[in-house]
Amino acid sequence: MRGFYIGRFQPYHDGHHAMVGRIAEEVDELVLGIGSADDSHTTHDPFTAGERIMMITKAVAEFDLPTYVVPLEDINRNAVWVSHVESMCPDFDVAYSNNPLVVRLFEESGIEVRQSPMFDRDRLEGSEIRQ
Amino acid sequence: MRGFYIGRFQPYHDGHHAMVGRIAEEVDELVLGIGSADDSHTTHDPFTAGERIMMITKAVAEFDLPTYVVPLEDINRNAVWVSHVESMCPDFDVAYSNNPLVVRLFEESGIEVRQSPMFDRDRLEGSEIRQ
Amino acid sequence: MRGFYIGRFQPYHDGHHAMVGRIAEEVDELVLGIGSADDSHTTHDPFTAGERIMMITKAVAEFDLPTYVVPLEDINRNAVWVSHVESMCPDFDVAYSNNPLVVRLFEESGIEVRQSPMFDRDRLEGSEIRQ
Amino acid sequence: MRGFYIGRFQPYHDGHHAMVGRIAEEVDELVLGIGSADDSHTTHDPFTAGERIMMITKAVAEFDLPTYVVPLEDINRNAVWVSHVESMCPDFDVAYSNNPLVVRLFEESGIEVRQSPMFDRDRLEGSEIRQ
Amino acid sequence: MRGFYIGRFQPYHDGHHAMVGRIAEEVDELVLGIGSADDSHTTHDPFTAGERIMMITKAVAEFDLPTYVVPLEDINRNAVWVSHVESMCPDFDVAYSNNPLVVRLFEESGIEVRQSPMFDRDRLEGSEIRQ
Amino acid sequence: MRGFYIGRFQPYHDGHHAMVGRIAEEVDELVLGIGSADDSHTTHDPFTAGERIMMITKAVAEFDLPTYVVPLEDINRNAVWVSHVESMCPDFDVAYSNNPLVVRLFEESGIEVRQSPMFDRDRLEGSEIRQ
Repeated sequence: MRGFYIGRFQPYHDGHHAMVGRIAEEVDELVLGIGSADDSHTTHDPFTAGERIMMITKAVAEFDLPTYVVPLEDINRNAVWVSHVESMCPDFDVAYSNNPLVVRLFEESGIEVRQSPMFDRDRLEGSEIRQ
Repeated sequence: MRGFYIGRFQPYHDGHHAMVGRIAEEVDELVLGIGSADDSHTTHDPFTAGERIMMITKAVAEFDLPTYVVPLEDINRNAVWVSHVESMCPDFDVAYSNNPLVVRLFEESGIEVRQSPMFDRDRLEGSEIRQ
Repeated sequence: MRGFYIGRFQPYHDGHHAMVGRIAEEVDELVLGIGSADDSHTTHDPFTAGERIMMITKAVAEFDLPTYVVPLEDINRNAVWVSHVESMCPDFDVAYSNNPLVVRLFEESGIEVRQSPMFDRDRLEGSEIRQ
Repeated sequence: MRGFYIGRFQPYHDGHHAMVGRIAEEVDELVLGIGSADDSHTTHDPFTAGERIMMITKAVAEFDLPTYVVPLEDINRNAVWVSHVESMCPDFDVAYSNNPLVVRLFEESGIEVRQSPMFDRDRLEGSEIRQ
Repeated sequence: MRGFYIGRFQPYHDGHHAMVGRIAEEVDELVLGIGSADDSHTTHDPFTAGERIMMITKAVAEFDLPTYVVPLEDINRNAVWVSHVESMCPDFDVAYSNNPLVVRLFEESGIEVRQSPMFDRDRLEGSEIRQ
Repeated sequence: MRGFYIGRFQPYHDGHHAMVGRIAEEVDELVLGIGSADDSHTTHDPFTAGERIMMITKAVAEFDLPTYVVPLEDINRNAVWVSHVESMCPDFDVAYSNNPLVVRLFEESGIEVRQSPMFDRDRLEGSEIRQ
């Protein structure tokens, strides 16, 4: 059983980490997709994909969960986005997301999506889980 | 000390594996770049990036070498290719390649390149190490 | 019941026309996709998409078959090609093609493909049915 | 005499339909260009090009006007936009638009543009005729 | 000693001209990069690259400074932008910019950047020096 | 009276130089377009656009002819190529080319093209005038 979880991870923060911990209880392996991998050097997207790969890899080592960290360049075309993700990533059985667009695109493609119960937004100021 | 080694890995074969084994003796960590990550479903490039990530990850588990497997979409512009690779990958100290274009592009950017002694081409029929 | 048939139609010739006639017996409506719609002005691809729309529309008027003629720009990424086609075209129930790549891509996506019995290639010199 | 009329048609509404009715009195055939054909699945652009082709084709059947419905992907370069449109569409003699940019681009290319007298905006709440 | 100075030059105004005059005192030759060369026909970016080449060439003729005017299409990827500029332009020894992103990207690539003392913004209403 | 002459100039050679000399007798100013400006580092296209700008600028200084040297990235779409060239270059009155595709594209757009009498191909071994 392999899960998929996508974020921009600019940066990878406690909210992401809590989410990965929760997912780790449900799957055997995890694909972590880095969205907007081609964006960097801006206030909204400061880190390169390479820097984000390092952050994430070190952080998830805490979990006993084989993890594939995959940078995903933007394809700017919602209708083909799921195919783009599927071709760049190892196969997965279930996707995790609270982003309504991501949820809809996966569900239209017949992929099971699990939305997390909302974690404590007040504590995780500025957290966002988005493509 | 982190090394970088790129191939299309269509598929990952014994020649690639011997090369990784050799590199494992010289570096502490390895970034494995999957070139032409966006090509698939042709005779020349049959596998998707996701399939190649799986092949490679399983194979390199044999070595005691922390490895980052990074799909790299073609950017079709030699003059910016090194910047593309550097932004998508964790930092590396040395690149390994026998591909003359890859060697030249890295060297022009001031990155050390080590070319492997030629392994036994007759035994590895069809091997190619290319971008 | 709506069918889909794709070709570059450079130009639309007797072979294409015979194929459409045959398909007309099996479906209620037809989507005719014009492949490589963005190519023109070369020996291999002389006509613009607009010119091809005119050729095809006039020719298929002979059949009593509601037809949607849809130019499809190349997306140069096999793994997302089916999603590209599906988003640009009215929904269809079955695809017609003799092109092995097209057949494989549709079948991987779970779409039924019907391959035509080979029509008389000697008579249709230069015919090709390709994406 | 063939006319050209472009909109995003997200969705095709009464304002568009009134405009087509008016154009039908002036031309023999009509090319209906679907702008931003590659956008979908957002609040601003909910429908795919394929869905819009269906909406439009059914609606314009009411008029006795041969119509070519042509999806047009965004080219994001104003200076080449007219050439893009011309190559994707059957030849046309006159363009209809109230969009100032569309009007200007066509006129700079020497193409006649007719702007419609403003229809009843109050009744057509939310109507927009844009590229 | 060759300098590099980039702007969108929509249009080239007194502020740009004062900046070029100042640079002319420090370098032997100047490369003038026209940013967003592919944008035109909008309020924010009215002129084509060709029109901007003419404006700039006529204006800088006043200085006794060999000048290369180079249109630069947007590459929409900060991490490869410096390589893009370097490949399109004659070699230069120093870049002039007050744009924080441009300054940062050049400095990360090891290129010397000189920021101009702020010229009289009140007098040059609407001036902007940006990529 | 301003002329336009395009080549890849990989490198700029005696054949190009003879052509420019001939054109210099017919026009007041010249736009020299560098085709495939984004290609470099290959046997077919060794030099960057920046390197080619330097070569050409130095060589044409011999003629008393105001010259605008403009790198042109490939747009890979014949139907919009003329618009691309026109937006990137100062206005011109006549184009010079022996390349059949270039000749055809300009003529379709209503631009006068002058084809040079063939210069001595035997002496200029390897010369090519192409887009």
